[in-house]
Amino acid sequence: MEVFDRAELLSRKELEQVQLVRLRNVVSQAMRSRLYGSRLKEAGLSPDSFKSLDDVRRIPFTTKDDLRSQYPDGLNTLPTSEMVRMHASSGTTGSPTVIHYTQNDINLWADLMARSMHMVGVRREDVFQNITGYGLFTGGLGLHYGAERLGCLTIPAGPGNTARQLKFMRDFKTTVAHIIPSYALYFGAAMRDSGEDPASLALRVALIGAEPHTEETRRRIEELMDVKAYNSYGLSEMNGPGVAFECVYQNGMHVWEDAYIAEIVHPETLEPLPDGEVGELVMTTLCRQGMPILRYRTKDLTRIIPGECACGRTHRRIDRILGRADDMLIIKGVNIYPMQIEQVLMGFPEVGENYLIVLERENFIDQIRVKVEIREEHFVEDMRVLRDLQKRMVSRLRDELLITPRVDLVQHNSLPKAEGKAQRVQDNREA
Amino acid sequence: MEVFDRAELLSRKELEQVQLVRLRNVVSQAMRSRLYGSRLKEAGLSPDSFKSLDDVRRIPFTTKDDLRSQYPDGLNTLPTSEMVRMHASSGTTGSPTVIHYTQNDINLWADLMARSMHMVGVRREDVFQNITGYGLFTGGLGLHYGAERLGCLTIPAGPGNTARQLKFMRDFKTTVAHIIPSYALYFGAAMRDSGEDPASLALRVALIGAEPHTEETRRRIEELMDVKAYNSYGLSEMNGPGVAFECVYQNGMHVWEDAYIAEIVHPETLEPLPDGEVGELVMTTLCRQGMPILRYRTKDLTRIIPGECACGRTHRRIDRILGRADDMLIIKGVNIYPMQIEQVLMGFPEVGENYLIVLERENFIDQIRVKVEIREEHFVEDMRVLRDLQKRMVSRLRDELLITPRVDLVQHNSLPKAEGKAQRVQDNREA
Ligand SMILES: [Zn+2]
Ligand SMILES: [Zn+2]
Repeated sequence: MEVFDRAELLSRKELEQVQLVRLRNVVSQAMRSRLYGSRLKEAGLSPDSFKSLDDVRRIPFTTKDDLRSQYPDGLNTLPTSEMVRMHASSGTTGSPTVIHYTQNDINLWADLMARSMHMVGVRREDVFQNITGYGLFTGGLGLHYGAERLGCLTIPAGPGNTARQLKFMRDFKTTVAHIIPSYALYFGAAMRDSGEDPASLALRVALIGAEPHTEETRRRIEELMDVKAYNSYGLSEMNGPGVAFECVYQNGMHVWEDAYIAEIVHPETLEPLPDGEVGELVMTTLCRQGMPILRYRTKDLTRIIPGECACGRTHRRIDRILGRADDMLIIKGVNIYPMQIEQVLMGFPEVGENYLIVLERENFIDQIRVKVEIREEHFVEDMRVLRDLQKRMVSRLRDELLITPRVDLVQHNSLPKAEGKAQRVQDNREA
Repeated sequence: MEVFDRAELLSRKELEQVQLVRLRNVVSQAMRSRLYGSRLKEAGLSPDSFKSLDDVRRIPFTTKDDLRSQYPDGLNTLPTSEMVRMHASSGTTGSPTVIHYTQNDINLWADLMARSMHMVGVRREDVFQNITGYGLFTGGLGLHYGAERLGCLTIPAGPGNTARQLKFMRDFKTTVAHIIPSYALYFGAAMRDSGEDPASLALRVALIGAEPHTEETRRRIEELMDVKAYNSYGLSEMNGPGVAFECVYQNGMHVWEDAYIAEIVHPETLEPLPDGEVGELVMTTLCRQGMPILRYRTKDLTRIIPGECACGRTHRRIDRILGRADDMLIIKGVNIYPMQIEQVLMGFPEVGENYLIVLERENFIDQIRVKVEIREEHFVEDMRVLRDLQKRMVSRLRDELLITPRVDLVQHNSLPKAEGKAQRVQDNREA
């Protein structure tokens, strides 16, 4: 018997009624902050302005720059003494983006996280190995609190130290792991290299998130680690993980619409797009108390998957993140997303766990070079075989990207390894 | 008005009654584990054997080797499904020491931690920057849960990244920091080097632990960071931090005797030592459900401070950790604790924030060399001044250690810096 949270059983109509009531509440709460206090007033908005859910579009967008310019507390609705947690982006330049939480916010976040994990079968009896960074990054503490709510045995392993991760997995019969996709590929390969048979482990589920990745990457993680891998979506501006999560049908991520409003807009015109069309995801917190954020431009590209999910949940699904509006590379005047390249590469069974996109400039013309690790058993002596593989890759990449990249086939383990978030693009054009 | 937890107000007699009742309970619980089930039976012990608190001495000691040999679950009293957390030592060789917690254990630990922080004035209104590692290390999550219980705003900053730590401290008006002593010295010096005036910060309290340190080090941290620094004692085998903690009188750490029994024994004869005498601390958990540990030889050297504390708490105090039974160096047949060297060095106002003890072998004879950073303003051109300082140091060290070390005076910032736990001893004798 599958067990649902009460919020997951609401009809579309009930869910949208809940959203409308909460939208009015959150607008009223947001108006206590410096940013929204003035911005919503200028737009002539008050809680009463929201007669239907579509009225959400009357709210001006909030951007990362707003968060930065309002640093440190321009979005807070309550004094510091009411806050119990702060998280921050790892922003490399300027002021970091910081998020403040009340205890109520932490509790609701833990609830959403527990609901997400429960949806893919995580239960009290599970042993949960949390293989991501704790601290300011929301991924670690986010899933930690969700697992605690479910009553799992949590191993707060943190990232890295592959040998110890594997030892714990074996010795404590870990059934569920939270792991970043690029590290999952590395970990799965390292596990097999060390002679471990993943089928002999109790590991059943991998929760993967924090990095956009392709369906092919997911399938490869599932195969390497002998698990079901479920996609997790979140961002610190919306609490962290637990914003949208895949169900067992692995066909898009259910957005928890009792806690968020999701919109897809055209990245340039900012006009709403119909279900099924790819655009920028815009999110509104419906329940946040300490620091509500309205119509936040996530810069993440995805689409609403039309139709109902076989699981019966009415919460709409978003597709896996197809790229970042910011990640777009412009090469010879063509728009390219790194994800498109990954998708092509992962279609070749010969391709290993690692690749690198290098941007170069030659005679004032931008070039794209893709370095691809080839699995040991395919890295053969006969150069003709490799040359043929290389040609087929160039051809498929050209079909996808509409420009001709260079492809270097390199040996297994020869590219720099990431134990954390992978750096897939190296821009050598300035050098 | 100072506020006390109810447990802190018990008279000695009431406290000891509580201890006796809980000792019987914990023995009964421990007997469900593989290790104690057989060991206590062999010793002819059952809960009824404990007529007075002194009977605790009838229980055989538990050692780190017991924990290792019982890996992974020989001390657990309940199945994994009842456990919600695991922590582990960073043990570099062999099996790590792992501790399992039920939700009840986590709650009690958080209570003890909150009580400890509350004792030194940490309140709901405080902004708490947790500058230690999260994950398997108990320090990070331990204080995190304590602060959450008090309702502080917790910044889970984690270790390192000095510039960002300082930025957060300034921008979010951090009032309380949890920081490892060696990093506190580094951080305080870096802060002053960057031109920051600590008096302009809101920082009021530093909670320092996880590394033995001298009173001189504490005073230097207080001076550098312009705070009150309170000593925290704990070890993962006893939950983590929150085992003993200083009160505002800064005169020894109150052991939470409603949750632990503390004994001091002679490190070799293992016989009980009277209050005031230095020996090995032996600890018994009184409330732990998932994994009770009885009469654990901590290897930490300290003493019970005789007499009552001015704060009125009846829980007895232990002195700061004076060394590890294992840290003892044997040089030319003489027993030396690194802490003795630190104590002498910190008595010199010319000494900076860093030093290193190097063990060398010359013509088959062990030598000890102490490299000491000298503060910039004392590192003068006139070599006679430095030579005089060096001579005085050698002389005081000889008085303390009874052997003659070599002393190298080095420039400010020339020794390797530790952003984590400092490595104070470098053994070059094998090379
Ligand atoms: Zn579904
Ligand atoms: Zn006291």
